[in-house]
Amino acid sequence: MKLSPNELAIMFLSLGILLFTAKLFGEIAKKYGQPSVLGEILAGIILGPTVLGFFAPSVTDFLFPAEGLRKVVMDSIATISIVLFLLVAGMEADIGTIRKQGKQVFSIGISGIVVPFAMGFAVTYFFPGLFGMEAGSEALFFALFIATALAISALPVIAKTLMDLNYYKSELGMLIVASAIFNDIVGWMMFAAVLSLAGKGDVNHMPIYVTITLTLLFTFFMITVMRRLIHKILPWVQAHFSWPEGILAFSLALTMIGAAATEMIGIHAIFGAFLVGLALGDTHHFREKTRTIIEQFVSAFFAPLFFASIGLNVNFVANFDFTITAVFLVIGTIGKVVGCSAAARFSGEGKRESLAIGFAMNARGAMEIILGLVALNFGLINEKVFVALVILAISTSMLSGPAMKKLLKLKKSFNFRDFLEPKAFVFIDQPVDKYKAIDILSDSLSICTGEHFRTIRNAVAERESIMPTGLKNGVAIPHARLKHLKKPVIATGITTHGIDFGSTDGHPAHCIFLILTPADDNIIQLEILAEIARTFKESGFDSKTVKPVNYTEFLSMIKSNGGA
Amino acid sequence: MKLSPNELAIMFLSLGILLFTAKLFGEIAKKYGQPSVLGEILAGIILGPTVLGFFAPSVTDFLFPAEGLRKVVMDSIATISIVLFLLVAGMEADIGTIRKQGKQVFSIGISGIVVPFAMGFAVTYFFPGLFGMEAGSEALFFALFIATALAISALPVIAKTLMDLNYYKSELGMLIVASAIFNDIVGWMMFAAVLSLAGKGDVNHMPIYVTITLTLLFTFFMITVMRRLIHKILPWVQAHFSWPEGILAFSLALTMIGAAATEMIGIHAIFGAFLVGLALGDTHHFREKTRTIIEQFVSAFFAPLFFASIGLNVNFVANFDFTITAVFLVIGTIGKVVGCSAAARFSGEGKRESLAIGFAMNARGAMEIILGLVALNFGLINEKVFVALVILAISTSMLSGPAMKKLLKLKKSFNFRDFLEPKAFVFIDQPVDKYKAIDILSDSLSICTGEHFRTIRNAVAERESIMPTGLKNGVAIPHARLKHLKKPVIATGITTHGIDFGSTDGHPAHCIFLILTPADDNIIQLEILAEIARTFKESGFDSKTVKPVNYTEFLSMIKSNGGA
Repeated sequence: MKLSPNELAIMFLSLGILLFTAKLFGEIAKKYGQPSVLGEILAGIILGPTVLGFFAPSVTDFLFPAEGLRKVVMDSIATISIVLFLLVAGMEADIGTIRKQGKQVFSIGISGIVVPFAMGFAVTYFFPGLFGMEAGSEALFFALFIATALAISALPVIAKTLMDLNYYKSELGMLIVASAIFNDIVGWMMFAAVLSLAGKGDVNHMPIYVTITLTLLFTFFMITVMRRLIHKILPWVQAHFSWPEGILAFSLALTMIGAAATEMIGIHAIFGAFLVGLALGDTHHFREKTRTIIEQFVSAFFAPLFFASIGLNVNFVANFDFTITAVFLVIGTIGKVVGCSAAARFSGEGKRESLAIGFAMNARGAMEIILGLVALNFGLINEKVFVALVILAISTSMLSGPAMKKLLKLKKSFNFRDFLEPKAFVFIDQPVDKYKAIDILSDSLSICTGEHFRTIRNAVAERESIMPTGLKNGVAIPHARLKHLKKPVIATGITTHGIDFGSTDGHPAHCIFLILTPADDNIIQLEILAEIARTFKESGFDSKTVKPVNYTEFLSMIKSNGGA
Repeated sequence: MKLSPNELAIMFLSLGILLFTAKLFGEIAKKYGQPSVLGEILAGIILGPTVLGFFAPSVTDFLFPAEGLRKVVMDSIATISIVLFLLVAGMEADIGTIRKQGKQVFSIGISGIVVPFAMGFAVTYFFPGLFGMEAGSEALFFALFIATALAISALPVIAKTLMDLNYYKSELGMLIVASAIFNDIVGWMMFAAVLSLAGKGDVNHMPIYVTITLTLLFTFFMITVMRRLIHKILPWVQAHFSWPEGILAFSLALTMIGAAATEMIGIHAIFGAFLVGLALGDTHHFREKTRTIIEQFVSAFFAPLFFASIGLNVNFVANFDFTITAVFLVIGTIGKVVGCSAAARFSGEGKRESLAIGFAMNARGAMEIILGLVALNFGLINEKVFVALVILAISTSMLSGPAMKKLLKLKKSFNFRDFLEPKAFVFIDQPVDKYKAIDILSDSLSICTGEHFRTIRNAVAERESIMPTGLKNGVAIPHARLKHLKKPVIATGITTHGIDFGSTDGHPAHCIFLILTPADDNIIQLEILAEIARTFKESGFDSKTVKPVNYTEFLSMIKSNGGA
């Protein structure tokens, strides 16, 4: 048995198309401030039976067959992908953060699990008919699973939302992150317990109590003995193997073996990978560079492949059930928000802050979807429930950012690049002095903003004459505040000649940002100036590097230099 | 059809074991100055039918079955791995380097292909019986393939050897690299042509001339239109997608599609990936960080899995044929060395230099093995010939470094870490002055080297008194040259107290390297001092970072900080 050259060719084609589409939609989702997993799943739904399969079933069958060897291979790749994704999730969950925040984390975490769990269990156990279930032992496992699914939070999406809101490093932000880590770890252990109870993944037909005992023992072993062992071994690997290659291979091999162990116990491979991630992420010997390589490769290759493949396997229109979805959305959100907010309020947080914690923790993100998929594959839930869980995951994630923004009166964090005006991107060909350069840039901004040229030019020139605005590394930032202006706007001038802006390092400027900000916002100007200074602290522009041929190349250049 | 949980568990286990063993043996090979691919293949041979399968066939059958679904999945993973490896190989082959070196590269490259090709073709075509072949059309394709296989060079291993010898950036080094790139590209195109001629990978049963035409068209398209297109598109992707995630996903998706295209044409998926790599590596918009992430992940995960899997599929003892191996070794080496050296000598290089070029280009490395495996899978060669090719690949790679070293009278490049004496690693607990610190470190080196304490101490203290040796970032490098000393030796002192060594940035030293070098080698001292200064230029030691608990942790720390 082997894939024919023809099948191999189509496999590569389908992988390429899947990856490309997933990433494209993921990036579009990001542009609109949504989690990228939303776009990635959407890509799969479009390429799978729901959309493309509906209009052109032969194309879907050709690229993503529902049977046969290629299906087996694609499924295996998806499984390896999700295992590596959970490794990254585990790496990000720093156990130390929980310890630091102590009791408050514990009460928010526990209450945020118990309340939605109890509500979810009660509804699904006492109204099994609602989900097409009959009462009995299956209904018990089903209720336990749904309860767990509603109790879970998703650290990655919560952390990402907080970063977008520039709130990650605040005290409340750290409290939320710590609670999410706690919730994540406990939630996954609960899910593992449910799976071992249900005995669904049982390979060796062990009695239930053996599976549960093994699960607990393995978890305990990984977060105590293994964690310390890794802390001891890592320096040795780093000292004697090539770096970072050696440590990368070691971590990935360990992940595979951890995945094998939990799969053999009868729970899913992802748990082992998550625990390996936890143990790895906890030691300071695991360096930033190693972490970055794994994280970036996984989120560029494996994660999109996995999330898109979900849409390939399930028809999201045919399996959409309004009642189930509505019940999950209502119970899930109320349970989680009430559970977390109440605990936060009791522990002394303000009203608005408590509610914000609740909505932040309500985000289920990728974790809910993974958990749903495992349950679906084990036959614990049907496709209708799975679709409802995916919708719950996505909508709670989409809700959490706006809710926090409103409750805490936050502004979305910005990047100075957001204010660059593509139409005010100018090549200054002639050797000119700085006031002439300000003239040129003011003129281009006058056209874009509708402000008078003289108003802009005079304000900027006046400010410039008080103190020169040349930074290090060939960058200058002439600027002014203007009345009537609604939002900041930046013109960019590029010149090979070099213009003296009185910079601190004595070098002439080759890249001039002319920055206008609203007169009534006295913070944003400082923030933009500081961010530009930070971006070009290490490297900047000289007569050799000034070679972007258009605005897009320029943007690409400063983005990949700045590194964010 | 799907993998059962049990099969999935064993698959993860086998992946983990394969990766771990491959990387371990790869690192051991590196320690002994050999290419890591040697160790990786060896790991597969040990885990496969040759060794483990001989002593414990049931274990091999359990972990790496020769039939069934798991075999299909493992084969597919190996194919994806090799495709990604060729992407990296393509990225490394910079077309621009060839242009710069011009005519000399062209003559060495052509002669280095034509001579071994002609010799290989003649022997295999006129003595097909030697390889168990009968005369006829099969023998023609066989001869063409063998000729191509002998004509190929392996850029990655050649580049690596030159770097190890500290000779990569020399004029001769660049000439060799450029010739290897030329050879690589032409060699792969020739192999693609042989495959399309033989029609072995032909999916759609196209006439031979169609396959050949498509191969040429596709190659031409990729290195002209596609190369320029990528140069144009990359800035757009970088400007509008998240960085470097977006560009990573884009590159990988493109690789999959390129692989699919060549597989469909009837040559192998690896050619498409190689061409995508060539096109990507050529534009300066493809940044160093993106390159590093792909290269590191591929060489830590995919490459070891692929090379180890070779040993799983072939019995290297049963299929070893002395005659075939000897013929390949002799013809391959003579053809390549003569071909390249003669051209180099004609183009004006010295005798020794010309021979060195010949032996450098003789290294076949991973490329030969990949090419052999493709031919084996297509039924163009049998397992005996494959084993002979693998031995040719490994032994020519092992030969090239020592040959160059001898011919060009080079020394292996060193790292100051190589001279650190583990037994002279001291924690200085008391607050002491710098002369007392020198006393302590001199004492520990006296025990290790057998030199008198006073000799060491006086020489170092005298040097120190002339000009203080404190560097930036909490590092100090007291040093002296000693007669009788055979090789450099370095003691390390770590202290939380901070000792004033009169450093350039005014900070006290927390890490003191006491360096002794032989009196008759006036270069090595300067090189060691410069290297230490370079390593700790960006970051170093202060009272907070001084927390390594033993020598291994210390080594791990400076290695992962230094980044090499």
